[in-house]
Amino acid sequence: MALIFHERVGLGGRRISPFSWRIRYAFAHKGLQPTVVPTRFADVERIRGLSGQHFVPIIEHDEKVIHDSWTIACYLEDHFPNAPPLFGGAIGRGVTRLVNIWSDTVLGAAMRQQIYADFIRCIDPGDRDYFRRSREAQLGVTLERYSADRDTALPAFLTVCAPLQRTLAEQPFLAGEAPAYVDYIIFSVFQWARIGSPRDVLPEGSGVDSLRNWRMRMVALYDGLGDRFAGYPTEET
Amino acid sequence: MALIFHERVGLGGRRISPFSWRIRYAFAHKGLQPTVVPTRFADVERIRGLSGQHFVPIIEHDEKVIHDSWTIACYLEDHFPNAPPLFGGAIGRGVTRLVNIWSDTVLGAAMRQQIYADFIRCIDPGDRDYFRRSREAQLGVTLERYSADRDTALPAFLTVCAPLQRTLAEQPFLAGEAPAYVDYIIFSVFQWARIGSPRDVLPEGSGVDSLRNWRMRMVALYDGLGDRFAGYPTEET
Repeated sequence: MALIFHERVGLGGRRISPFSWRIRYAFAHKGLQPTVVPTRFADVERIRGLSGQHFVPIIEHDEKVIHDSWTIACYLEDHFPNAPPLFGGAIGRGVTRLVNIWSDTVLGAAMRQQIYADFIRCIDPGDRDYFRRSREAQLGVTLERYSADRDTALPAFLTVCAPLQRTLAEQPFLAGEAPAYVDYIIFSVFQWARIGSPRDVLPEGSGVDSLRNWRMRMVALYDGLGDRFAGYPTEET
Repeated sequence: MALIFHERVGLGGRRISPFSWRIRYAFAHKGLQPTVVPTRFADVERIRGLSGQHFVPIIEHDEKVIHDSWTIACYLEDHFPNAPPLFGGAIGRGVTRLVNIWSDTVLGAAMRQQIYADFIRCIDPGDRDYFRRSREAQLGVTLERYSADRDTALPAFLTVCAPLQRTLAEQPFLAGEAPAYVDYIIFSVFQWARIGSPRDVLPEGSGVDSLRNWRMRMVALYDGLGDRFAGYPTEET
């Protein structure tokens, strides 16, 4: 029963995608060890041929091809019901979907501004032209211009994070006493920043200690899964 | 086995508190019919004497007194495990707590600005001085000044609501196929607006149809529980 994970990679095999990170953690949570197919932006024709669309991650399982991280998480939950639960039932799944949408829009956009000017450097050099062109067309400004006001915007970013901080001051994980898919969703956005920028988006002394500590616990899960791949490149490449 | 619900009331018995509304729905969800003790702000000594603090709702059950809406919801879930679940397990409870905190801070503050200049009129005349004094001290401005820019702020309010709208475009309730405590939390904030202001905070044509429709479904639940009490007063009182 083949299980294949097409995972986005950047410079030197760096794992640069929040959507791939949450699925990587979901596999670890379920105790599954898929065959990983590192996927650059340049591999778009392979992904299109398999799934009919160009976004990664996608997974293959039993002749089926599944795309979209939320759909993949639901698929894993439904097809591996005896492994530890990602949602813990219908209500947990419903509420996690709300957080998934909040994360992909509100938190994700705030984080993107914080890191996008740096992010280009962790992308494979062969993918950088495509990345810059497609993202700048989407944003309507250069990556550098998009992030230019990020210092001024940091307090607003931290305000977006405040409900996470407050929740994690009350309980060790967003899912309660133990991590679940909601933790992987939010963590993946911070992991995107960890790999994609030298910037500390949660500076010490800014009132987000519970969130900082949770982030470190998340990095350490599954034998240090969050640190298994290279971080932000330290010199020009 | 006595079960007593001290519930905040305003002018003419209006149910004016989002925190009491979510507990009222939680009781209905669990099929419980507590004895309701309508509680004005002027009844603060009774509440203090019972619970050692002045916030409502509080519940009494089997010689125990529980305060704080989140703690009450958890208590009901744990002590009435055979009734329909509010959280559906540990993960559902953990994630719902995050949404509870987001609602009480981000959504709640945005809604407060939309309605606070009107809200004073649905409060019992005998409680209005206290309400105005305590809230204006907290806000640092008059209620009227606090809400003065609400028309300008409506687009920002709708942006705060966007993840709710997007989720409800995908599934009928925030908890998935059926309502659960997460729906009661968010609905209670809209119910606060429904009773507390003549203002339509979700105007037609503003891209929040799924949220509008969900709100109507929530009002209709449990034999129209959301409409069982008087709405915003139509004439000066």
